[in-house]
Amino acid sequence: MDANGPSRVVIVGGGFGGLNAAKALAGQPGIDVTLIDRHNHHLFQPLLYQVATAGLSPADIATPIRTILRGRPRSRVLLDNVTGVDFAAKAITTASQTISYDYLILACGARHSYFGHQEWEEFAPGLKSLEEATEIRRRVLTAYELAEKETDPERKRQLLTFVVIGGGPTGVELAGALAEISRQTLRRDFTNIDPGRTRVLLLEAGPRILASFDPSLSAQATADLERLGVGVWTESRVTDITKEGVFLGDERVRAATVLWAAGVQASKLNQHLGAELDRQGRVVVEPDCSLADNPSVFVLGDQAHFAHDPKNPGVPLPGLCPVAIQQGKWTARNILRELKGKPREAFRYVDKGQMATIGRKRAICEIGKVRFRGMFAWLAWLLVHIYFLIGFRNRLMVMLNWGWAYLTFRRGARLIVSKDWRAHDEIQPL
Amino acid sequence: MDANGPSRVVIVGGGFGGLNAAKALAGQPGIDVTLIDRHNHHLFQPLLYQVATAGLSPADIATPIRTILRGRPRSRVLLDNVTGVDFAAKAITTASQTISYDYLILACGARHSYFGHQEWEEFAPGLKSLEEATEIRRRVLTAYELAEKETDPERKRQLLTFVVIGGGPTGVELAGALAEISRQTLRRDFTNIDPGRTRVLLLEAGPRILASFDPSLSAQATADLERLGVGVWTESRVTDITKEGVFLGDERVRAATVLWAAGVQASKLNQHLGAELDRQGRVVVEPDCSLADNPSVFVLGDQAHFAHDPKNPGVPLPGLCPVAIQQGKWTARNILRELKGKPREAFRYVDKGQMATIGRKRAICEIGKVRFRGMFAWLAWLLVHIYFLIGFRNRLMVMLNWGWAYLTFRRGARLIVSKDWRAHDEIQPL
Repeated sequence: MDANGPSRVVIVGGGFGGLNAAKALAGQPGIDVTLIDRHNHHLFQPLLYQVATAGLSPADIATPIRTILRGRPRSRVLLDNVTGVDFAAKAITTASQTISYDYLILACGARHSYFGHQEWEEFAPGLKSLEEATEIRRRVLTAYELAEKETDPERKRQLLTFVVIGGGPTGVELAGALAEISRQTLRRDFTNIDPGRTRVLLLEAGPRILASFDPSLSAQATADLERLGVGVWTESRVTDITKEGVFLGDERVRAATVLWAAGVQASKLNQHLGAELDRQGRVVVEPDCSLADNPSVFVLGDQAHFAHDPKNPGVPLPGLCPVAIQQGKWTARNILRELKGKPREAFRYVDKGQMATIGRKRAICEIGKVRFRGMFAWLAWLLVHIYFLIGFRNRLMVMLNWGWAYLTFRRGARLIVSKDWRAHDEIQPL
Repeated sequence: MDANGPSRVVIVGGGFGGLNAAKALAGQPGIDVTLIDRHNHHLFQPLLYQVATAGLSPADIATPIRTILRGRPRSRVLLDNVTGVDFAAKAITTASQTISYDYLILACGARHSYFGHQEWEEFAPGLKSLEEATEIRRRVLTAYELAEKETDPERKRQLLTFVVIGGGPTGVELAGALAEISRQTLRRDFTNIDPGRTRVLLLEAGPRILASFDPSLSAQATADLERLGVGVWTESRVTDITKEGVFLGDERVRAATVLWAAGVQASKLNQHLGAELDRQGRVVVEPDCSLADNPSVFVLGDQAHFAHDPKNPGVPLPGLCPVAIQQGKWTARNILRELKGKPREAFRYVDKGQMATIGRKRAICEIGKVRFRGMFAWLAWLLVHIYFLIGFRNRLMVMLNWGWAYLTFRRGARLIVSKDWRAHDEIQPL
């Protein structure tokens, strides 16, 4: 640490981990905070699937990072890409400059893993950014428009087939929303097709969906999805994805829209850290979330492999928002302690439980041994997500959108926007 | 008309003209309506500049055309591009099919005219579509982010210079909003730059801005803009636009962000109609908005040159929403009259006046001889635009966004979204 001046804390990533660390540190005496992110906004990932399914607008779940940190003395926000870290020089390099740090907090999150088949991304976008959500929305809504004009029955069936790969919470929420769009939102809007006949398939390689939940809740979610008309295929490993659809061994499903919710891997940056990585490319961290060889460097959230939870030692914490939020706050606290000459404390995760929504009035919650589902779980899901949304405006807008959608069965953001702002004349194909 | 069946009315374009014709005709006995548009949504153009300046979300000013026309018997909506019209066969061709008509209503609107310099578009996007609005928003917000990181003072000044070309209502509204963003929204959000020092220039080739208004209101608008810190340059004709900025003869202004609000020309389709066109490429129409040689074809709104207004014969009606709306309704009425064996009636335009807003509490209104400005004009502007917005949800969302923005001086949609959904790692340059 630089004895002559304030200690410089550089935070990479404005997600749940980085933002919570920044909020706890920015403005504290003796600390300069620099938060670097590729995007100008903090994104509320848990509701991203609703942007992808036309329920919410991008702006409803995103807040400018500058606004969140505005007015904090000695703190700045940079829109930039971190290209490398130099532990020896205690500096990071971005596309535009080099920035020295006394403490470095890496919270870059995760990106999609196509298990070595990056070429699948073109045919099966994942759901991590607003851009991807808008692209998924474009594909979903365009599929119905093309089906309405299609005369070839086989092609029409292909256009009205939506495949979601991956039975985790995101996959379940996407599949449920796609089913509701077909059965409710669009039901009366087309003349040549019956959106109600849309095929929605949820493919899961494992024996059950929502494997992180209790089996009884997985079963409930499966029943709820099936009641919505979703085909839930477990033990179904995708072997190839093409423009035509998905392959499962010698099985083949023709689908114009395929969505990827199967696997994630940690940020590319990890490969340049020279630290121990796990199979998903996450950095193995110490009990205080720091690096074994570089105690002034912390790695948080989806980017980190934290396996020091007393309840299940050796088992890494899951990639959930609460983990990132708590690690961000805890790390800020440890830095403040150290600056006061106190020792750091090992991170302790408080398990707040987990929840997933399947659709209107359908959700599952698991809090320790307590499990509930249905209407009550759905209301709990709504409240928790509204509560954790950042910004009064976003909370209000989301509540109003949800209220309106609940009453009308409509979706407020049914927009097809082109991929190219200069493509004035062409309808873009799927 | 086909005596054995209902008459088939094909409407091209879901803007103000086409949509109002469709709403008046769809569901009427003895009429099949087909509405064709390139977009799945009707766009409320007058508020598009607020999407471009981060005040509103795209979904707030757009409504799915299917939803507007849902439940009307014997009416259908097609997402398609019209590629040609065959008057002899009474059929139009789209990218996917051929559709016969008894009556054809063309309401394709206008697109930007770069006066033969299409290459300028890349450096100076115009404001006609949601895609363009989002791209403009990206450029405006990114310019500040890049300026925050910029060390070279000249480049920084270039990044903090915004040039709007064209002093019509759109140009004035854009320039006013850009000034408010710099002076109010972003004022406290940056550490290395003072957004308050942003240069906003409004360039007008003619002697005054808002030339369609009374000179006293033009003067008022100029004063309001200058009070906001906008440089209003009249008699300033742009001779070139490059990546570096704009040229006015031998004058040169370095600007990273240049917006085009100068000229429009009618839809490309007009060149295939074999009808008489005016200088802006608009189709010269008869008093009933039909084509001289093809009375079963009507051309409306910005696509048409209608010069039969008794008040100023020979002078074409301006490209304003009310003209398109009234022509759409009138044409529907004439078709219904004719089907009842009654003669058509010549279109009579009811001038509702015009208004433009400069910014917070600043606007001008001109209704016949009545002129007013300032707070009252601004409130009138707000009410009129809320009233004409389609859909309860949109009205509510826009009102809430405006109320929130009025109280907080913030903007609800401050999002930089990448041009490419697969550009995961890169900040896109201007």
